Amino acid sequence: MRPPHPPAALPRGFRFAATACGLKKTGALDLGMLVSDMPASAAAVFTTNRVQAAPVLLCREHLRASKGRMRALVVNSGNANCATGAEGTGASRATAARAAGALRCAPEQVFVCSTGVIGVPLPVEKILRAMPRVTRAGRGSTRSFTEFAHAILTTDTRPKWAAANCRIGGKSVRIAGCAKGAGMIHPQMATMLAFISTDAAIAPGLLQRTLTAAAKQTFNAISVDGDTSTNDTAIVLANGAASARRIQAGTAGHRAFAAALEKVCRSLALQIVADGEGAQRVIEIEVRGASSESAARRVAATIATSPLVKTAFAGGDPNWGRILAAAGRSGVAFDPDRAVIEMACMPVYREGRALPFDERAAHRRLLADSVPILVDLQQGAAAARAWTCDFTAEYVRINASYRT
Amino acid sequence: MRPPHPPAALPRGFRFAATACGLKKTGALDLGMLVSDMPASAAAVFTTNRVQAAPVLLCREHLRASKGRMRALVVNSGNANCATGAEGTGASRATAARAAGALRCAPEQVFVCSTGVIGVPLPVEKILRAMPRVTRAGRGSTRSFTEFAHAILTTDTRPKWAAANCRIGGKSVRIAGCAKGAGMIHPQMATMLAFISTDAAIAPGLLQRTLTAAAKQTFNAISVDGDTSTNDTAIVLANGAASARRIQAGTAGHRAFAAALEKVCRSLALQIVADGEGAQRVIEIEVRGASSESAARRVAATIATSPLVKTAFAGGDPNWGRILAAAGRSGVAFDPDRAVIEMACMPVYREGRALPFDERAAHRRLLADSVPILVDLQQGAAAARAWTCDFTAEYVRINASYRT
Repeated sequence: MRPPHPPAALPRGFRFAATACGLKKTGALDLGMLVSDMPASAAAVFTTNRVQAAPVLLCREHLRASKGRMRALVVNSGNANCATGAEGTGASRATAARAAGALRCAPEQVFVCSTGVIGVPLPVEKILRAMPRVTRAGRGSTRSFTEFAHAILTTDTRPKWAAANCRIGGKSVRIAGCAKGAGMIHPQMATMLAFISTDAAIAPGLLQRTLTAAAKQTFNAISVDGDTSTNDTAIVLANGAASARRIQAGTAGHRAFAAALEKVCRSLALQIVADGEGAQRVIEIEVRGASSESAARRVAATIATSPLVKTAFAGGDPNWGRILAAAGRSGVAFDPDRAVIEMACMPVYREGRALPFDERAAHRRLLADSVPILVDLQQGAAAARAWTCDFTAEYVRINASYRT
Repeated sequence: MRPPHPPAALPRGFRFAATACGLKKTGALDLGMLVSDMPASAAAVFTTNRVQAAPVLLCREHLRASKGRMRALVVNSGNANCATGAEGTGASRATAARAAGALRCAPEQVFVCSTGVIGVPLPVEKILRAMPRVTRAGRGSTRSFTEFAHAILTTDTRPKWAAANCRIGGKSVRIAGCAKGAGMIHPQMATMLAFISTDAAIAPGLLQRTLTAAAKQTFNAISVDGDTSTNDTAIVLANGAASARRIQAGTAGHRAFAAALEKVCRSLALQIVADGEGAQRVIEIEVRGASSESAARRVAATIATSPLVKTAFAGGDPNWGRILAAAGRSGVAFDPDRAVIEMACMPVYREGRALPFDERAAHRRLLADSVPILVDLQQGAAAARAWTCDFTAEYVRINASYRT
């Protein structure tokens, strides 16, 4: 799965910048800044892990203090600034203050995000020293956007971005987002790092509701390894620079905007799964015929996090027994004799037993970049989807010595 | 971790036998039988997976029908007889009937167990044809016990057994057990295959309560990969052949018996973890200072099933940040700033931040066969332990092509 082309036309009134401040030993880009020329409506979802990094706590505080009207965000990769004590909090505050000084806004109007290793003190002086390079250099060009998207990566092998347009009252509104994440991916009511900008005009409260709904169907439906990060953050900034009509709840304009935002979120989420640590392919798990959407989601999530299911996909092994066993331990009640399983569109299990299928053909189909799995519980009308990747020896190699 | 020596003195009044009936392509032992010379009190715990194999359902039915007085069990490896429809149920019934005929007892007094691949029809004629070889050959010798223990293995690299004695009213009572399991190990109120025999005299009801309590602290506290099997079964048979006093609830004799039984269960459980698919070492996770035992168990289990924690241990990487992050997503409320983490007896995290430690010394200690981890939440007095193994590339290799 290749990332889509970078967006040619970015939302108006935003600037992006990136630099290498020295947090990554490789000298790669590791500090990014996103600025709205005017105060923007802001919405965000954060990790639900009980352990939350200093920048996550500061983002929550600033979003409240600014009443959802933000100007910028600063993000570093290479260090999560998590479990770093009072100095960690001080480092995030100093970063916001320095950015605010350059932009002549309040520190509360600046988001600060970090991603990387947990528990290592953040050398904030590197960020502060490099800050003028990002506050002065920002531009609304595709190139500066792609550099920003590179600056947020850690174990990712490629950048992730997505864009969509929609029309609000006859005017075109643009949405562009980028994301990072390859391991410790199992967002819970939250997500990894994703930054989305739009020139739509929309109040912070409605923007928040729209983002929360989109995240539930996209970021919160993916898993690489079942581990929920301490730094998960998705932020949307809407600055109204398209001069389109202000979006009101329940209108056709809102539905168009929500669909476009969800499209961007889904594309970013799927790019994260496709670039999962060591991953060769994306598995799309659809659970149908459940008694409720939450039951369907639970079955799908249990299959998506089963190491036995995921390793079988690494070898292209049509091991539907593991899918059935994972569904069975999900905690959702269902009748195994009524359930139906299809792998890569081939029925493999029905009426409590295996269906004959061509093993070699199945193996070939399971080696595709993207493999659909269907589990129909045949007990109701609710459905849900989840996306995961296969679990390879390369994942183990990456994670057996991540710190060292 | 090596398995202990096979028990020299087996419980009196039991016979064991094993043969190769042709279910394993390698020609290895794959059919075992355990017979009590007299009806024995029986207790069992089974998988809580919603999908349960035909032999599991039959075991439950027979245990009820016989009112907990059983004579024998027949077990095959190489095929789980799960998701095999009405023929699968018929295969288990035919096996019990044939064994009962040879032993001149009721079919309801025979347990039938299966382990191996899911969803492949069980060629029961191979079992029936080989049955005379196990019904006639049974002996109470150490050699026949170890052959039986080999006949139940699948991806295990070594057999697992344990024994303990205790005194009941001045008489010695013996307990001996064997188990199998290396993958799809995450027992929930149940376990993998474990067969324990004892010549103690004890009523079925009290035996069941004693086994359930022991399983909670042992089999249900281990995880190899978070996947709960469809065939998990642990059975205890107590035939009274030691001629010791009948064990009564609440007596010193019961406490001695319960402790001995738990010792056998813990040894078997730890042997399973140590032989986890691809495993190099056992991780013992102790959670202390929790507000309740269930909270402590939940934190311990979440750490024990985290792929990121388990891969870090594969490389001997002292990545305590992943332990903290896993605890944080367990759903248990705690204050990260009060928690303390020790790895291999070295304090690494306290008061919300890293403690300085010698990285090279830590790495060396983490390469041991068994590594203790302590997480002290410092919010209460409850504690729990969980055991898991590291997650290696070899696990992926084994499971990427298990069926083929």
